[in-house]
Amino acid sequence: MEVLEAIHTRRSVRKYEDKTVPEELIKELLSAAMIAPSAGNAQPWQFIVVDDHDKLTGVKEYSQYAAMAEHAPVAIIVCGDLSLEKYPGYWVQDCSAATQNLLLAAHGKGLGAVWTGIYPMEDRIKGFSDNFNLPKNVIPLSLIVIGWPVHEQKYKDRYKEDRVHKNGW
Amino acid sequence: MEVLEAIHTRRSVRKYEDKTVPEELIKELLSAAMIAPSAGNAQPWQFIVVDDHDKLTGVKEYSQYAAMAEHAPVAIIVCGDLSLEKYPGYWVQDCSAATQNLLLAAHGKGLGAVWTGIYPMEDRIKGFSDNFNLPKNVIPLSLIVIGWPVHEQKYKDRYKEDRVHKNGW
Repeated sequence: MEVLEAIHTRRSVRKYEDKTVPEELIKELLSAAMIAPSAGNAQPWQFIVVDDHDKLTGVKEYSQYAAMAEHAPVAIIVCGDLSLEKYPGYWVQDCSAATQNLLLAAHGKGLGAVWTGIYPMEDRIKGFSDNFNLPKNVIPLSLIVIGWPVHEQKYKDRYKEDRVHKNGW
Repeated sequence: MEVLEAIHTRRSVRKYEDKTVPEELIKELLSAAMIAPSAGNAQPWQFIVVDDHDKLTGVKEYSQYAAMAEHAPVAIIVCGDLSLEKYPGYWVQDCSAATQNLLLAAHGKGLGAVWTGIYPMEDRIKGFSDNFNLPKNVIPLSLIVIGWPVHEQKYKDRYKEDRVHKNGW
């Protein structure tokens, strides 16, 4: 799939077929995430791949908008590792760029995915940290829920001219 | 260009040919940025397109790592608009996803670009806010410097197995 088509046809996918995602595909998504730009090329990320059904079902207890994980074959927790930062303060941007790469790669491979937010909500951070035994220096940013989409994803354009300014406000 | 190829061959490009970038292409990059996912689909972003040579030259006075802007035909300041947030606290993630879309779209179109950080450095935020008359609710996140690349960009893989954890740490 062509990159601009992928960008414009990627949607948040919350309903999945009852079908597993091969490990090799997950590795491709993670590889796409890990080639994202990062401040000082620090690559301050860690990823938790979750395919344990009980863990996926439990997510809704501490992250209400991630309940679709119960019916997904797999999800990935994208985390920032503060001990890997070169320029402190940029990990959220770095890990968000990695997340966007992951979403686009998933879509390019025919998968569907949705970015559910964790950071900066304290209760969600605690929920994921406790349930996945995260070290103190590893902060969960987002849970990306992944599966084979039930519906087709259509091209969208949300260009807004009033958000564009020339050489100043 | 295929989306996974685009993801893996995109590099930070800091040297550009002496050649302008058509406005229509800039619009395509902005359109790619604006279709990024955002918390509650709030789309809390604003973009300043900068092609004024004096302004591009001035950037290095308050953002030392963005000196390449002096020799670039155009740059885009990606900003978060706090007044547009639906779930406060997510604008950095939203605007970072938009930035990554913009970088991939640029690469897909044969352009080269580099993400230079502004937020959360106070002095850089002040520099850009003052020089581009940004309203108080509009926070500059990054300056994306763009041009036609002098060098070819090669495929890279930075997959690190030790950053991947299964069902918990």
